[in-house]
Amino acid sequence: METEKPLIGIIGGVGPSAGLDFMRYMFANTRAVKDQDHLDSVLISCPALIPDRTEFLLNEGKPGYENPAYGMFECAKRLYRAGARYISVACNTAHADHIFTLFRALVRDSLPGVSIVNMPETCAAYAREIGVTRAGLLATAGTYQSRVYHEYFTAEAGFVLIEPDADIRETIHAAIYSEDFGIKAHSDPVTERAKTILQDAIARLAGQGSQALILGCTELPLAISPSNSPLPLLNPALLTARRLIRLTAPEKLVP
Amino acid sequence: METEKPLIGIIGGVGPSAGLDFMRYMFANTRAVKDQDHLDSVLISCPALIPDRTEFLLNEGKPGYENPAYGMFECAKRLYRAGARYISVACNTAHADHIFTLFRALVRDSLPGVSIVNMPETCAAYAREIGVTRAGLLATAGTYQSRVYHEYFTAEAGFVLIEPDADIRETIHAAIYSEDFGIKAHSDPVTERAKTILQDAIARLAGQGSQALILGCTELPLAISPSNSPLPLLNPALLTARRLIRLTAPEKLVP
Repeated sequence: METEKPLIGIIGGVGPSAGLDFMRYMFANTRAVKDQDHLDSVLISCPALIPDRTEFLLNEGKPGYENPAYGMFECAKRLYRAGARYISVACNTAHADHIFTLFRALVRDSLPGVSIVNMPETCAAYAREIGVTRAGLLATAGTYQSRVYHEYFTAEAGFVLIEPDADIRETIHAAIYSEDFGIKAHSDPVTERAKTILQDAIARLAGQGSQALILGCTELPLAISPSNSPLPLLNPALLTARRLIRLTAPEKLVP
Repeated sequence: METEKPLIGIIGGVGPSAGLDFMRYMFANTRAVKDQDHLDSVLISCPALIPDRTEFLLNEGKPGYENPAYGMFECAKRLYRAGARYISVACNTAHADHIFTLFRALVRDSLPGVSIVNMPETCAAYAREIGVTRAGLLATAGTYQSRVYHEYFTAEAGFVLIEPDADIRETIHAAIYSEDFGIKAHSDPVTERAKTILQDAIARLAGQGSQALILGCTELPLAISPSNSPLPLLNPALLTARRLIRLTAPEKLVP
């Protein structure tokens, strides 16, 4: 064990595609000319252990709603046993304070030597690095409501986090969740209706003075890319994948 | 530990995309209406531990060419510690006899309770199940040469394994490996040249009496799909993903 390199561990499965996309970002951002150049990593997907994050946040304290942090911790233990020492969770809502603080405490108390690499925190650090202070947030209702990004894009740190109005937030949520036209149900290709909604929301956020857009839901990169966005994009999963490479093998990070 | 459900473990990273595609096949073939319905799984990608399989097979016995089975076994140990009890390797060439037999012996001797689920074996079992006896093989030079599929599609079992002629095998290899037009370098989209080569090869294999096509390289499904193939397709990674679901949660297998 002592001679093993620390692995990067990703808690995926929330939802299943988000973990795969996260791994793909890692591979795409690693300087590699052959298979063997890629970094050591392990992705765990035990979704049955991790109850719906939004449901928990909306019903916290009621019987039957267990904190998803316990299931995330169980996944972290399994990653740890596989050799992971840097761990990220590929879900935005899981980073809500009432979930993530408990998760972090459980890991700190039981898994020595593990660094938790946090998606919204990484995103805020990057925004600061590139001089973005007014960031527009695109997200699901659950992420807006639980203020996941507000915890890191704080006024104290010099940020203005810009949200669209309530009616627009609802249309964004539908563009992600609607069974008829949302990205979760229709991702290949994304429907014109979802695209139009998101482009309208982006135009509003630009009009409110956003300098960049936070893609605060792992489905959004399927519909919004640098080629169709008028503003620079902050993709937290992509930025976190890049940070993990920088932490473990900086010489391999694609510029 | 005793109450934990056995996880499905995938040795990926050989190459990096193959492991992700394998996981995607599992997710796509699981009956799920919410995240929590998906199966417990873990994907490990430690490519630096696993030397190139084709290079080893072509240079076996020479100094400096370690059997990739040892690195695959190291990955299997890590998956085991994470809880995996069904393990597959997402690489066709890794199933060559001189690699896979050693891998299987190492696992059998050290990791009690682990079932290795083998891609070409699963593919042959499925072909038998659907009554295919004459199967055409599309693969890289390494897979043709190391006779990975010949070990399972045997005459004794009633199979005729059909290979294209040597000149066509070379063009197939180029359609996968060429830096100018091959799928490994150009997958999104696949080049017209690679597509034309593969369609020509498929026409030859059909002309030689193939009843179905084995996609014996994990890159091929990017270029060949049911919609552009005149013959039924046997995708070993997809079939193995389905077999893992059948072994662990048969009620969840999408028909």
